Order: sequence, then structure tokens, then C-alpha cells
Amino acid sequence: MRAFFTGRYLALLASCGVMVSAHAQQTPQPSLPDPAATTVQAMGWMQGFPPAPDKLITFDNPVGNAYPRSRWTFSHIRELVPTANVWRGPGNPVALPQALRDLDGVRFKALGSGEELSFGESLARNYTDGILVLHQGKVVYEKYFGELKPERPHIAMSVTKSFVGTLAALLAHEGKLDPEAAVTRYLPELKDTAYADATVRQVMDMTIGVRYSEAYADPKAEIWDYARAGGMIPQGRDYAGPKSFYEFLQTLQKEGPHDQAFAYKTVNSEVLAWILRRVSGQSLAQLLSERIWSHLGAEQDAFFMVDRTGTESGGGGLNTSLRDLARFGEMMRNNGQANGQQVLPRAVIDDIRTGGDPAKFAKAGYATLPGWSYRNMWWVSHNAHGAYSARGIHGQTIYIDPKAEMVIVRYAAHPVAANAAIDPLSLPAYQAVAETLMRK
Amino acid sequence: MRAFFTGRYLALLASCGVMVSAHAQQTPQPSLPDPAATTVQAMGWMQGFPPAPDKLITFDNPVGNAYPRSRWTFSHIRELVPTANVWRGPGNPVALPQALRDLDGVRFKALGSGEELSFGESLARNYTDGILVLHQGKVVYEKYFGELKPERPHIAMSVTKSFVGTLAALLAHEGKLDPEAAVTRYLPELKDTAYADATVRQVMDMTIGVRYSEAYADPKAEIWDYARAGGMIPQGRDYAGPKSFYEFLQTLQKEGPHDQAFAYKTVNSEVLAWILRRVSGQSLAQLLSERIWSHLGAEQDAFFMVDRTGTESGGGGLNTSLRDLARFGEMMRNNGQANGQQVLPRAVIDDIRTGGDPAKFAKAGYATLPGWSYRNMWWVSHNAHGAYSARGIHGQTIYIDPKAEMVIVRYAAHPVAANAAIDPLSLPAYQAVAETLMRK
Repeated sequence: MRAFFTGRYLALLASCGVMVSAHAQQTPQPSLPDPAATTVQAMGWMQGFPPAPDKLITFDNPVGNAYPRSRWTFSHIRELVPTANVWRGPGNPVALPQALRDLDGVRFKALGSGEELSFGESLARNYTDGILVLHQGKVVYEKYFGELKPERPHIAMSVTKSFVGTLAALLAHEGKLDPEAAVTRYLPELKDTAYADATVRQVMDMTIGVRYSEAYADPKAEIWDYARAGGMIPQGRDYAGPKSFYEFLQTLQKEGPHDQAFAYKTVNSEVLAWILRRVSGQSLAQLLSERIWSHLGAEQDAFFMVDRTGTESGGGGLNTSLRDLARFGEMMRNNGQANGQQVLPRAVIDDIRTGGDPAKFAKAGYATLPGWSYRNMWWVSHNAHGAYSARGIHGQTIYIDPKAEMVIVRYAAHPVAANAAIDPLSLPAYQAVAETLMRK
Repeated sequence: MRAFFTGRYLALLASCGVMVSAHAQQTPQPSLPDPAATTVQAMGWMQGFPPAPDKLITFDNPVGNAYPRSRWTFSHIRELVPTANVWRGPGNPVALPQALRDLDGVRFKALGSGEELSFGESLARNYTDGILVLHQGKVVYEKYFGELKPERPHIAMSVTKSFVGTLAALLAHEGKLDPEAAVTRYLPELKDTAYADATVRQVMDMTIGVRYSEAYADPKAEIWDYARAGGMIPQGRDYAGPKSFYEFLQTLQKEGPHDQAFAYKTVNSEVLAWILRRVSGQSLAQLLSERIWSHLGAEQDAFFMVDRTGTESGGGGLNTSLRDLARFGEMMRNNGQANGQQVLPRAVIDDIRTGGDPAKFAKAGYATLPGWSYRNMWWVSHNAHGAYSARGIHGQTIYIDPKAEMVIVRYAAHPVAANAAIDPLSLPAYQAVAETLMRK
């Protein structure tokens, strides 16, 4: 379960009959609820003015907002919490060219079980809210299910981290940020924390030894403290803990050495986001808009969840439309170019694609990701296609396959947070779609 | 002070040396703070990551967020509270044609005092955040001060009401809403309230006898209960009152007869917004997007503040960019047309322009608005130019002058809420600008 999460969506997992494993290494085999019976329409969430009390979803819901409420909340985050806008810029949207194909019948074998099924079948089984496949820059497949609409932003969860890592790589390339420098060169506020003797590079690649657990089955795990501090779950009446991301980050203590192993911890992304603000003098929302979002021909603004001080969650708070996420993925695949413009230097893309150290990654024991690595907050497969990915809990994905000239973006509301539970029906499906597209 | 207000912006008025009159009828003569010394830059609000504790603005600020903090908050509402998006639609923005003129030197005499000053001088004196003048559909003047940017939405306060009233007039024109029907035909939930024997028309024109005070100098006034119920100010630790706009509206009791006099009360707009949702089956944000906002060639999405149930504030929660507000005003001036499309039927515009009953309006005693009336939640001057206006506290305005073919939109953060304090330097200035433009 080493993935960003927002606790309130998960508090009820147990009551949904979902077993949540505390370790990503083992693929959970939960008894999953019926996707069709738990759509927003079927459940009747938020219908009417006002909705019936038992169909009302509020931030401070005492029973939490876990699945199946998440099928509504993931597409309505800004109606629940404060947010910061990521402006799409002054230009016109640039339409994505279309070359639609029927990919529903593409068949593949699930990881682990070996069950054979079709791409179309896998989408419902994986609680997909929306999926879009680009091939050679053209939309070959685009579907929305349930509450997601083409124009409506969906929470990207930890896909957010890859935006933060990309911006850090960009500023490093421009000489504005030194990855080899100590974190405290930029953030002296962290001198008494786990980050006191860490470098920026270690943060970018998540090889930090910090006492911070993302095992959200454990109510005492630090992820709960993180989410509460950032206002992502209610703080409760007598809360006396940190009241912002910045305050929380200053409480983190060391656990083990740095630079030994990949250890996926959301707080590293928050530290990196803080460094970006300090270096650029801009908020994360401004920086993302100015350097990336306003150059994509995006249809919609994006936005971040913010804490009570207006500070964006760089660990999991980004929300975008599916199409705009595809535009970003296509710019990455296209070596940093979009609409005739070099948005990111090719060297930044190459650095991400080359990946990190698979040996350090292997120590984290991700069963569904053998031979992968982590670099600049991207997941790099090192497979024959050179695929790399941004990944967020509950199934959020950017999957870039350079050899197949393919980008898949997917938003979802899977009842299980960990991608280890979702990969078996998605990674081999993406590979099969890639091979189909390559055959044409 | 008969205007929508968000209490947290006002709690500190006293400590700013501003006298707040409880009655709009008398022009307050407060000792006003220096506009230049209280800009966001001069005050240092929200600079740095994180801002210094005394420069930090949060929703739950124990000292409130009154002026001068409002010079920041009015342009950053969505970073403080949950919001609902008003989509600009799938099309490209349609640029406003430009024909810039120097209007700074236009001279006029202030209402009441007779002081002579220039239009340019009046803008700082009125704590303007941004102002845009259209003449014959072209931008002749556009200025931003302080924190407002062309692309950044600003809170429209009670200008919101005019959008709600326009939508109601539209649905009435289409036969979907009967203004002569009882409110309870649409909202049986209000059968035990002040609205039990009221008609929709009385709500649209604010001639409702309801016990509800907007005298925000009085901490026991119902406006505080309204704002707390809607989550626009903190509810406080031991709050046990209504927790949504809908719950609050069901508590309202009668005070005097209906249909006798204009009585400006924000709750009427909330009732009308509720009726619109019930009749259309859409949220207010969806309805505004579908029927108006997506047809203007808007540059930006707009948004509403929402309560904990996701219900928009139809009384004062709309936020728009200044240019998009101008596009809306121009569509109104242009008899409902925008970009070659009839967005609103001409009959709807005519009904608004014709106005309400000046005799009923006169009973409310607005000293700065002699001979005016109120219709469909618009303020109608009945002057020689046939000017009509949308008005929100602290200086928010759409001012449409059909004879001069002029639209002025203005966002501001005046320390005093009541437009009675702001009109003396704005209404005669607008008239002088109109006369200048007519002379060409």
C-alpha cells in the first residue's frame, strides 16, 4: 500500500468487504463489490435538491467517504475541499485528433491468475471512471463511465507526484535546483528532521530513510497524520496536531539510512514540492501552469487540493480532465514537444525514461513490477517497449509506451487502493493494446 | 447594509476604524484606511512558502478576514472554501475587441459632498480591484489593481443574485416556472416558513415579509446564521444550528405582509436558486453554464462557493473573471445576443430593463438610488439612459447603460460593505464616463 491515499475515502473499506493488505508486495485477493451495482446512478448518490440524507456526501461524513462513495467524490473533489487553480493559459484548446478503433476485443492474460479476458471486460472489472488511448498522437479509444465527464477533473492521486518530479527535473536541468545539494540548502526548516542529511536527488528518487508509514489499514500510521494535517480528512473536534503540510513535514524523524533502497513515501513529494516553491518563488499551481499546463492546449484548468494555508498537496492533490492528462502524457512521449513547441527539454524526458536503480527498487518488493525502477517520481518498467508510468492509488495512471507510440491515461475508483491489486488486469492489458496498435 | 455579505470579511471592520451603519439609507461617512497602504503587496499577505504567521490568511482565522485581508481573499475564494465549477463550455474564448481610450481624466462631482474629482482618482478611492468599460462592445478601458489578474476570478458577492434572477426570468419565459405560482408549489419544504403564502414573483422581486436582518454590525442578525449555515464563516466548535442553506431556509419565519415594499434580503435569492434547481433538475452551476456561461465565449470558468452539501450560494457565492463579467453585461446590453447567438430571449432582457415598482422600492429608503426599482434581482435606475445594474457589497458591479451603449464591470474590496458608501464616487463617475463616450 505504498501509495498516496486520502484516508476518508478508505475508512469504510472493511465494511465493503474489502481486505486491505498493508504490504504492496502481495497482491490482495479481496472479495470485490460488483462494479455495476455500485455506480453513482445505481447508488443514487447526490441526486435531488437536496439529496436524501443517506445519499448525501459531505466532507465531514461520519462514516467516511470510501468506496462506493469514491465513485462520486473522485470526480467532485473541489466541491468538498478548498483548491488552487492551475490555469490552462490564454490560448485556445487544441483538439486531440481522432482515429477511433474498437479495442474492446483485445485479449490478454491477467497477471498471477492467468485468467484470459478482453480489454473491454477489464475496464469494468477495474472500476474505471474513464480511459483514453492515444496512438501516434491520435485518440484511438476514449470511454467514460459513471460520474466522470470529458470536461470534469478527476483526482489524479499520486500521479501528482510525477508532475512534481518532472518540474524538479526541469529546474535541475536549468541549473535552478541542484539535485546533489542538501535538502536543507533550500529548506533550513528541515534541519531537525529526517531530511537533515538527505540530498535533493534522494528525495526525487525516494530513497529517504524516514519514519512514515503508508499502511492505511493501520489507524496509527503516519499517513493519517499527514492527511489530517493537510485537511484532506476532518481533523476532529479536539485536534491539536500539525495544521498544514509544512508543519507536518517538520515533525518527520529518521528511520534507517538514506540512499539504500526505494521506499515510496508521499511526504517526499511534499518536501520536493516545498523545494520547488522555494526555488521558483511560485506556488506549485503557478509553476505547473506556467511551465507545463499552459503549453499543452489543455481544454480545462487543472487544480490542486490545498491545506488551510493554501498550500497544494504535491503528493496527491492534482485533479485534471482525462483528455488533458492525455495531452501531458503525449508531450512526454513526444520528447517534450507539444503543438510545435518544446515544452520540456528532451534531456529531462530522457533522464526520466532512463530510470533509476532497479536494484534499489527491487528491495521494495513490488510483486507486479519486476525489474522496474523509480526516477524523478516516475515508475520505469525497463521492458522491451521502454514503458514508463505515473501511478496513483485506486487505479489512476499515465502509461507511456514509446516503442508502440502509445499513451494510455486512466482514472478509476477501484475499491482497493494499492495498484498491486489493480495491475493484474491493467499492465498486461496495456501491453496487449500496445501490440495490437503496433500491428495495425 | 441590505446586501449579501460574508461575515468573516467584516468581523474586523471596527478595528480598521470603519464605522458600519446598520442602514443602507444613510451614507456612512467613515474614516477610511489609506488604499495604497493596504494593498496586498504593501501588507505582505501570503508572501513566501509558508507566509509569516502574521501574514497568513486562513478560513478559520480567529481574527477574521475583514479588510484589508479582503484585498487578498476576494481574489482567492476557492483556496479557502469548497466550490462548484461553472464550465465555460467546449468552444474557444472569443476575444473582446479593443479600442482603448484614456478615461482617467473624466471629471465628475461626488454624490452628496459635491467634491469634484476624476474617474482615475475615484478608482483608488473606491478600493477598486479591477474595472473594465465596454463601449459599443469594445474594451475602451481596463485596469487591474493589486491582487486581481485578468484570468483570476473575483467574488461577485450579490451580483450573483442578478444571475439567479435572470435564470428565473428565462425559465419563466419558457413556461417552465410560473412566477404567479405559490413558492410551495415548487418547494413544499417551505410550507411552515415565511414563504408559505408567498409567490415566486414576490421572491424574484424581493417583496417578501420575512424576519431576516442583514445588519451585520449586529452579531445577532440572521445574516450571521445564514453565513454560518452555509459554511461561509466558521461554524465554531459547539455549533448546533442548521448546517446547509436548505436547512437554514426552512427556519425562516414571517415578519409583516408580502408584496408591500422592496426589502433586500439575501435569503430570497437562495429560495429562488432552490426553485431553479427543483424546476430544472440541475444544480445552479450546471444551469448557469448550460444556459448562459457556455454561450459567452468566456475566457475562464466561473465558480460558486458551496455549503457542506455542495449547494451553491445563489445569494452571493459566484466568482468570475472581470472580462467574463463584462461579456455577460454586454450580452444583456445587446438584447440577449452574444457572438451571433440569441443567448437570452429579448423579452427577458426587456422585462428586466422595464424594472419593478418604484413606489415599493422607495419604501426601502436608499438615499443614493432615488427613483430606482428592483426587478428579477436587478437594480433599475429609470434614469434618462435607462441604466440598470447588478450590485454586490464592497463595490461589485455590472452597470449597463443602454443609451450610451456602455457596460461597466467593477470588482473591488471597499472596507465598507454597503454600496451606499461607494455609490457617491461610482454612480456619477459612470454617468460622466457614459456622457464622454457618447460625445466620442
